[in-house]
Amino acid sequence: MPEVIADDSVGLVSPQLLHFDEPLTLRSGRVLPQYDLMIETYGELNADKSNAVLICHALSGDHHAAGYHSMDDAKPGWWDSAIGPGKPIDTNHFFVVALNNLGGCSGSTGPTSINPETGKEYGPDFPIVAVRDWVHSQARLADRLGIEQWAAVIGGSLGGMQVLRWSIQYPQRIRNAVIIASAPKLSAQNIAFNEVARQAIAKDPDFHNGHYLEHGTIPKTGLMQARMLGHLTYLSDDAMRQKFGRELKEGKLNYSFAPEFQVESYLHYQGEKFSTRFDANTYMLMTKALDYFDPAGDYDNDLVKCLAQTLCRFLVVSFTTDWRFSPARSEEIVNALVQVDKDVSYACIESESGHDAFLLPIPRYMAVFGAYMQRIARELGEDVA
Amino acid sequence: MPEVIADDSVGLVSPQLLHFDEPLTLRSGRVLPQYDLMIETYGELNADKSNAVLICHALSGDHHAAGYHSMDDAKPGWWDSAIGPGKPIDTNHFFVVALNNLGGCSGSTGPTSINPETGKEYGPDFPIVAVRDWVHSQARLADRLGIEQWAAVIGGSLGGMQVLRWSIQYPQRIRNAVIIASAPKLSAQNIAFNEVARQAIAKDPDFHNGHYLEHGTIPKTGLMQARMLGHLTYLSDDAMRQKFGRELKEGKLNYSFAPEFQVESYLHYQGEKFSTRFDANTYMLMTKALDYFDPAGDYDNDLVKCLAQTLCRFLVVSFTTDWRFSPARSEEIVNALVQVDKDVSYACIESESGHDAFLLPIPRYMAVFGAYMQRIARELGEDVA
Repeated sequence: MPEVIADDSVGLVSPQLLHFDEPLTLRSGRVLPQYDLMIETYGELNADKSNAVLICHALSGDHHAAGYHSMDDAKPGWWDSAIGPGKPIDTNHFFVVALNNLGGCSGSTGPTSINPETGKEYGPDFPIVAVRDWVHSQARLADRLGIEQWAAVIGGSLGGMQVLRWSIQYPQRIRNAVIIASAPKLSAQNIAFNEVARQAIAKDPDFHNGHYLEHGTIPKTGLMQARMLGHLTYLSDDAMRQKFGRELKEGKLNYSFAPEFQVESYLHYQGEKFSTRFDANTYMLMTKALDYFDPAGDYDNDLVKCLAQTLCRFLVVSFTTDWRFSPARSEEIVNALVQVDKDVSYACIESESGHDAFLLPIPRYMAVFGAYMQRIARELGEDVA
Repeated sequence: MPEVIADDSVGLVSPQLLHFDEPLTLRSGRVLPQYDLMIETYGELNADKSNAVLICHALSGDHHAAGYHSMDDAKPGWWDSAIGPGKPIDTNHFFVVALNNLGGCSGSTGPTSINPETGKEYGPDFPIVAVRDWVHSQARLADRLGIEQWAAVIGGSLGGMQVLRWSIQYPQRIRNAVIIASAPKLSAQNIAFNEVARQAIAKDPDFHNGHYLEHGTIPKTGLMQARMLGHLTYLSDDAMRQKFGRELKEGKLNYSFAPEFQVESYLHYQGEKFSTRFDANTYMLMTKALDYFDPAGDYDNDLVKCLAQTLCRFLVVSFTTDWRFSPARSEEIVNALVQVDKDVSYACIESESGHDAFLLPIPRYMAVFGAYMQRIARELGEDVA
């Protein structure tokens, strides 16, 4: 827990739950008659409401992006390294909005919420949501907050896909798109990893076809396995070599099937921890949204044509050892933007941390990101050093 | 099934079961009091027994490396593309020996065999075997066949590790080592993938801590998941992109959790097929042998020192898109051999097929491999075109 909160922290924060009564028609054709969004905000909205920044979360993220909920919190929000006074997303200049997406399990309407039509949890009956549905719900959130145009929409991984979708779906409502460690669509390999993870969950006898809450169980084992696999793909081969190598847990081989290498223990620990905090149906939904994302699909599979209509500036960032969404995938976005003469900055950051790098305060990453955000702040008339 | 058997096939073949009465002390310290090895041979042993070649199999391979067991067989042995008259391992010149390794499930003593001490299947009580144990048992097999020195020991992936171990453990008994798509030891990432696969099996309720045969079940689901993951890592991102891309099974998205993309269906099919033919305890054992393999561990973790004692010539082959055992891993072996002035040839083959490439008849691969083997045949006094 933080004994004192650092000067560059947003400090103690409180989430807010916003209710939306207007039905939301989803990509699948299904309709969510009403829903809640759990959000957090940091910094102050300026008088003309031009300094708002939206943070889009990745697979297992939520609305708690920065600061602490109480002095007892062991850890701050998931992107505290990037959000706060003097940080790249500088709360001295920006009004930052973070939310838990629909289908999530941290307060927004999702599989663990009560379905008003049945009076029971949605469970597996919660409709499959697509990235465009999230963006649609985020646009309504902007309406509610009186934000006509975001100064920037920012996200990494699945979050970056939401940013890309914003630039296409609401070109007038976004001035800057910051797309980090992302891709214009999943590859067959990406989809395959997701399916193996989903199978681990779906085949856990405690999953009960998603109706586990009614059975008083949770598919802990399946979630643990899904997370072990996910975690493994977020790290680079190099990072694992440096962090664990072939180090043994007990200094010697035991010739048994219990974890013997440190890397095995680490993955067990990560999987275990995740399996008690995350909802399995949400995990299934989030990976489906990843699989489906393919904005060029509506434009004859032509990403250039798809991005031609965007009006914002772009910052695209990738990391050298990210093999989940490699630099080549970010460069597909950059190259398509260049072909239609869009204003795009691109940085491929040297890092050994794989996909996870997007969450880490890597100096060159923070410098590039911070400089880009400062330019936006200066345009707002902010006094930036 | 083969309506006619091609001229370059070894044709119809029959496995033989050899019994060994002498106890085998394993690396773990446990002792296998007696055991059987299931083998196949192709070609003829020459008078001075100098033309014998040993084939070492990988994780899911066995003794049936080439030819057909009957005219009803749908497929030939697993390495039929490389073994036969006129093929790289040319049975006009070489006497080829292939075996199922100890711990296997295709006839050699393993978890599904009867433990003579209990009268029941070994199941999970079968001792964990290491690569050096296999090589030890293969040396006894050579003794049995009257083969003092192999003209070559050949293997890919886990098979290549056995070859490397042969060159260290029995330097006088091997003239040529052909190490394909292999590594001097697993990386943390490799171990992590194995552990995720083992967890899928171990946590299947039908696994019963390995005692599934006694319960009249098999852990099909776990094996299927392990194979889906394994298969995914054997293919390259490029190969999957070309083979499947984002192609849909039914031409449209269904917004459901059933497989929607072709790549998902393919992995399901591969996993399903494997789960009915392979023993789960064997899978567990084989992945442990992979994890443990680290011959330099006995030489102050110095691969150069470890390989200094080898006497054979080496052919090392890697494949550009193999990310399970990348070219860099093969080059560790090559560089260590070069440092101690060993006779080593190395080819990194351009291929889009990932780790699986080692099983495919890629023209440049077959040419390099064939030329190397022809040199050996010429030294035997064979008349090679």
